[in-house]
Amino acid sequence: MGTLSKVAVLNAGGWGTALAVVLARNRHRVRLWARRPEQAARLSAERSNDTYLAGVALPESVRPTADLAEALDGCEAAVLVPISAGLRDLARRVAPLLPDDAAVVHGTKGLEQGTLLRLSEVIETELRPSHRGRVAALSGPTHAEEVGCGIPTAAVVASADADAASTLQAILNGPTFRVYTNGDIVGVELCGALKNVVALAAGIGDGLGSGDNAKAALMTRSLAEIGRLVQAAGGRAETVAGLAGVGDLIATCTSRHSRNRRAGELIGQGWTVDRVLGESRQVVEGVPATRAAIALAQRYGVSMPIAEQVAAVLFDGQDPLRALAELMARDPTAERWGRLP
Amino acid sequence: MGTLSKVAVLNAGGWGTALAVVLARNRHRVRLWARRPEQAARLSAERSNDTYLAGVALPESVRPTADLAEALDGCEAAVLVPISAGLRDLARRVAPLLPDDAAVVHGTKGLEQGTLLRLSEVIETELRPSHRGRVAALSGPTHAEEVGCGIPTAAVVASADADAASTLQAILNGPTFRVYTNGDIVGVELCGALKNVVALAAGIGDGLGSGDNAKAALMTRSLAEIGRLVQAAGGRAETVAGLAGVGDLIATCTSRHSRNRRAGELIGQGWTVDRVLGESRQVVEGVPATRAAIALAQRYGVSMPIAEQVAAVLFDGQDPLRALAELMARDPTAERWGRLP
Repeated sequence: MGTLSKVAVLNAGGWGTALAVVLARNRHRVRLWARRPEQAARLSAERSNDTYLAGVALPESVRPTADLAEALDGCEAAVLVPISAGLRDLARRVAPLLPDDAAVVHGTKGLEQGTLLRLSEVIETELRPSHRGRVAALSGPTHAEEVGCGIPTAAVVASADADAASTLQAILNGPTFRVYTNGDIVGVELCGALKNVVALAAGIGDGLGSGDNAKAALMTRSLAEIGRLVQAAGGRAETVAGLAGVGDLIATCTSRHSRNRRAGELIGQGWTVDRVLGESRQVVEGVPATRAAIALAQRYGVSMPIAEQVAAVLFDGQDPLRALAELMARDPTAERWGRLP
Repeated sequence: MGTLSKVAVLNAGGWGTALAVVLARNRHRVRLWARRPEQAARLSAERSNDTYLAGVALPESVRPTADLAEALDGCEAAVLVPISAGLRDLARRVAPLLPDDAAVVHGTKGLEQGTLLRLSEVIETELRPSHRGRVAALSGPTHAEEVGCGIPTAAVVASADADAASTLQAILNGPTFRVYTNGDIVGVELCGALKNVVALAAGIGDGLGSGDNAKAALMTRSLAEIGRLVQAAGGRAETVAGLAGVGDLIATCTSRHSRNRRAGELIGQGWTVDRVLGESRQVVEGVPATRAAIALAQRYGVSMPIAEQVAAVLFDGQDPLRALAELMARDPTAERWGRLP
């Protein structure tokens, strides 16, 4: 993409702000939409987002606004990054304002509660038909703090529409933000939604002091079970071996900062689940993600023993040590990874 | 395997001692061969291996010996775990002493220098024809200290011969040591040999302070390039997504204790390669592994950009920061993982 594009980033959380900075570094004109006028005013005055991404200066070409119509007016691409519970509402508000030929990508990880829809599906049901089949997902090991600071990062943009993915790759790819395309949006979105189940499991293991071998094995076997689910849902099992799968899993499960891993660690150390969730100020996404994993495993008839043990600990009072023992006591099998030919 | 087996473990390093303990916990009669008579005598007197696996008591059913014939006499399985440079010589000494129907597995990671043979190939060229095609490899995320202490661990035993793999699985599998089989010995052995190239690269990144995102991306993209090589060499790309691939890679690249990761970290911090290698008391296996990776990439005509940059740093004076920049500056592509259909 040799020419500059107008890009709208919705909204101004940590990840949205980091992506706005990436886009500005790529010389695009960026409108960064904040939900509340006072937040937009503060971003404009301070030229940084001290609440969600402290220490990163907003380049001149990032224009904060609380006016969604202004943000989307004439844009060539729209980047949606709300929390997952706010995605449908945002997509509904975006629909009448979005140019027909604009590329649309979201950077939110999760599934819609209740419907279990993937988030690109949620967006597509709300947008006009011209966007059907073209919405993309941005995923991978992308801690916003590092992306904002320009620390090298690689990500994947997935869409069933190869042109949409290439357009977004060209807009987002830059010297410190390397973007790969992937045609398997089913796999990319499911990996992002389910990784926090594994983060909880890995944290529980950390809390039990179960060692580096077991943690590596847990992560590996989790990839196998997520791969089975992805394949049953119509995605490609090997997506699990890419940036949105193993890449994001490594970044999440080995991070001291992951809220989900930390919640699991406290449970492993003997805290009750209620106490952990009660004391967490933010949503522990791994909890609804575990419910979703169990529901999807039933829908598609695939075995997900790790997710089942996490669910037993979270919802049925299973002792974490016993959960670990049950995983180890299963009959020895052949190592199977997805159901590849 | 309901009945007890006689198993020979050769030799009494840290990993051999840990495996002897695993086998004894499974109620097998274990002969643990030490190269030097005084070492065997010390193991017998102290009932532990304080040099290589301190703090782990040898169960009664582990009998140390320095007599190779005694160790192998009537054994149903032989477990070879020397350093890779000593493997051919050991296999040659084992050949005339090994029962024809004994199962053979090795637990050593590497390739033979010069020939670039996989280690099961080295063993098979030295053993009698009755063992051709039946030698297995044991691999996975298996820090010996944790295995010795009975901390839960999962491993994979790979052989082209499914019966051999099942026999060894039945012998080795136990409550805290879960063993999967895998028919792809080519993939399993190449993953084990090449993981230390990635450990060096990950360490270089750590030394440069290049962040969690980049480390997760590096590990993920390394899996892709190892997968390409595995497939070109006749193995299965998805083996890279299993315990011997991503599992071992996670355990190695995220460990504070990995010698290879640490060597890379010092290089990333500005030490010269010569100084790092000069001050290391043990072999940094990632260095010959990098030479092997480059040679194999040429032999099979596959692209291995990460191994190439590690080689440039190690052998051609490439600046580590420049190596990282070159990896990030490559043309953006589609995410491809191996060459799966």
